[in-house]
Amino acid sequence: MDTMLPTALHDELSTLLGDGWLTDEAARRRHGEDDSRRWALPDAVAQPRTREDVVAIVRACRAHRVPIVARGAGTGTTGAAVPTQGGVVVSFARMNRIVEVRAADRCAVVEPGVLNGELQQALMPHGLFWPPDPSSAEVCSIGGNLATNAGGPRAVKYGTARDNVLGLVAVTGAGELIRCGGPYTKDSTGYDLTHLLVGSEGTLALIVEATLKLSPRPIAQAGLRAFYRDAGSAAAAVSRLMNQPATPAMLEFMDRRSLALLRHNGSDVPEAGAMLLVEAEGSHDTLPDVLAALGAAAEGEGLLSLDVAVDGAARDRLWAARRALSPALRTIAPGKINEDVVVPVSRIPDLVAGVEALADEFDLTIVAFGHAGNGNLHVNLMYHPDDAAQTARAHAALPRLFALVLSLDGTLSGEHGIGLSKRDFMADAFDAATLDAMRAVKAAFDPDGILNPGKVLPPPTA
Amino acid sequence: MDTMLPTALHDELSTLLGDGWLTDEAARRRHGEDDSRRWALPDAVAQPRTREDVVAIVRACRAHRVPIVARGAGTGTTGAAVPTQGGVVVSFARMNRIVEVRAADRCAVVEPGVLNGELQQALMPHGLFWPPDPSSAEVCSIGGNLATNAGGPRAVKYGTARDNVLGLVAVTGAGELIRCGGPYTKDSTGYDLTHLLVGSEGTLALIVEATLKLSPRPIAQAGLRAFYRDAGSAAAAVSRLMNQPATPAMLEFMDRRSLALLRHNGSDVPEAGAMLLVEAEGSHDTLPDVLAALGAAAEGEGLLSLDVAVDGAARDRLWAARRALSPALRTIAPGKINEDVVVPVSRIPDLVAGVEALADEFDLTIVAFGHAGNGNLHVNLMYHPDDAAQTARAHAALPRLFALVLSLDGTLSGEHGIGLSKRDFMADAFDAATLDAMRAVKAAFDPDGILNPGKVLPPPTA
Repeated sequence: MDTMLPTALHDELSTLLGDGWLTDEAARRRHGEDDSRRWALPDAVAQPRTREDVVAIVRACRAHRVPIVARGAGTGTTGAAVPTQGGVVVSFARMNRIVEVRAADRCAVVEPGVLNGELQQALMPHGLFWPPDPSSAEVCSIGGNLATNAGGPRAVKYGTARDNVLGLVAVTGAGELIRCGGPYTKDSTGYDLTHLLVGSEGTLALIVEATLKLSPRPIAQAGLRAFYRDAGSAAAAVSRLMNQPATPAMLEFMDRRSLALLRHNGSDVPEAGAMLLVEAEGSHDTLPDVLAALGAAAEGEGLLSLDVAVDGAARDRLWAARRALSPALRTIAPGKINEDVVVPVSRIPDLVAGVEALADEFDLTIVAFGHAGNGNLHVNLMYHPDDAAQTARAHAALPRLFALVLSLDGTLSGEHGIGLSKRDFMADAFDAATLDAMRAVKAAFDPDGILNPGKVLPPPTA
Repeated sequence: MDTMLPTALHDELSTLLGDGWLTDEAARRRHGEDDSRRWALPDAVAQPRTREDVVAIVRACRAHRVPIVARGAGTGTTGAAVPTQGGVVVSFARMNRIVEVRAADRCAVVEPGVLNGELQQALMPHGLFWPPDPSSAEVCSIGGNLATNAGGPRAVKYGTARDNVLGLVAVTGAGELIRCGGPYTKDSTGYDLTHLLVGSEGTLALIVEATLKLSPRPIAQAGLRAFYRDAGSAAAAVSRLMNQPATPAMLEFMDRRSLALLRHNGSDVPEAGAMLLVEAEGSHDTLPDVLAALGAAAEGEGLLSLDVAVDGAARDRLWAARRALSPALRTIAPGKINEDVVVPVSRIPDLVAGVEALADEFDLTIVAFGHAGNGNLHVNLMYHPDDAAQTARAHAALPRLFALVLSLDGTLSGEHGIGLSKRDFMADAFDAATLDAMRAVKAAFDPDGILNPGKVLPPPTA
């Protein structure tokens, strides 16, 4: 045995889980990191196959006051899945069944280890999809999507993970199995534990089954590309686009530096202050009118040019340009701090101006793009890790970015969550009474504090 | 002084609130009932003007362990606003300001006493609306809509109150002011207290301000009326309508008895097993195609006839027929138990068949109609209160209705809430561990149990 766990706990869980109980260092190492580039070594990895396994794991760990860190596919960006206090990582890789697709009820019942991309494939024959579309969709798990309240471009029309779950079965930190919600779309029956658990990053309960709200696949799609003189003109267009009834299916913003980066990497993009990509959905009959409505809303003060890409290839090029941005960032600098801040739509120009001012003040390249319809921009602070001074400047600029966002009535995270990386900024985002209410909720679900300790909520001061 | 409250509490709140502190019996009586026809006399009525008043009221009552019952406009149907344990009713009638309409951010900041209908009027010039549309919309308050997670026909497309709130300011049972969410539409920052408080019926905190998510008003609307041989054919059409991408803006079901009732009252409605009313929204250009898509989905096995009402007058007649149903019930019998149960859409035929069987077994007239796209039917058990045996049969049928709904994977309430009237069925809807988790959440927000005691959660069974 290659672990620091109490022998009784090790023996109990080893007997329960058989080859689903891993204590070798290689396995522990593999299960100790996420896409935040943080890592820590857990004392063991548990791979339950059933909800009863999960109940037994939590009860056993609770008896020994051993921390439990839930793990999906490890694609999170905030360190939420990193076992910084050791203990047992519970990987849901083996709880990966699509239990039932209830097409007539527009919902699917899944275990948390199902990958988002697998689910989408399984739903295709039913003409349905599950809206959350993080950029990691092919390889991230539904459990992780729920734990972080993941989003993506489609959230502007369809909402995030929280808006697309109807019910959960979960195991609390007290080792109790709870069931909330179900295969129905309207519910005023008791407290809404379902939506509370979504986004709680494994700190309140471990999700062992989810009933997901599905949407019908659109029949036809088309895209618009609009260039603006400046971010202010683009943001005004975002408000106009969101205030007319043909809600865009995606509405993405790219700032001046994003466009320069695309040009630098060979994309056919003119010089402009900002670009919007707008996706329209409809039937073959209605799509032209939806596009016309979106085009009319995109027009206004500061518009430089507007292209409509109705056919597949041109539309694909539009979205390829958007997808190319994240990898293209690496050509600026190998280090990046990628935040997913949110501001009210009307404050996007202030956010962009503030980010430009921070770039000047800290002598950094900062690139901003993202989900404009939700005011959810990815602000990327670029740096060379080998350049200690630049690295220090990037990290010094980060608190200023959050302060800027909060001064604009915004918030820290729109889709990545808090984890470790934003935990210590929570006290800036919430007053003491609200943080205390969150701590009381934590204690209600996890009385001994064994579930993902040290994440989301900062330690109380004093 | 005409109250049983501790003198020190009376003096403190009387001084604080002046003419917003009422202890005369007439005022107490007026504030002691809701639309459940239940009532109880509070010891006093507080009418705060500010959030600071609310904090002071809660802290003072907490110091004396005096119950607090929040009250909006008193249109609730479950007894949630009835002060069954006496104490202080906190009426939000004076906290009725629309603080801000942030049209560019598609949200409005309101105090809880604003009436739903007033808000809709104020939003009209902005081309926006707030989707929840309970039948009491003209006279019910936003605070009450949030407390009960109110819905209405539009919920099928736009969701209920919970889906249309972005942020709250609230006072917990500990007298602490908390702030969660804000004027933005995407949020993965800490625990989702906002959606937890919605639907908690004043048992966790008193909402003192809400930031509401608004939607753009549709440009054009039209209706479809489809008659079916039986409820099963209609329910299959509901699934088809919900599984194609032109989501109806409303999708209402009426059973055979509802249609008989309409005919009896002079409506031009043929004999049929069931009717669906389907509302389409679009632009002037897209509406015909949306209607065609909905019409195509409505067609199928068991369809008897389908009318399209594009113009205003015919559409108005459609919805007048729907609205006429609730008042028409009084022509059957003056007493009714009106439940708002929810089942998965695919189980609507089983619900309707089960309700017909209950009507036979208990020799009652039971009329079912409602929000089919959400599987949320109003099941009305009719009785003459002067007929003791019939009244007893109606009340005896109710537990059987709930048992039926739960056996179909449904739930107790879709939009009215639990209050007193369904409280004792909560133990049938949830297992003990889940109810205990709800009780722990209650204790986290309201450690002394002073907020609306005895509502929503049944007393623990020793």
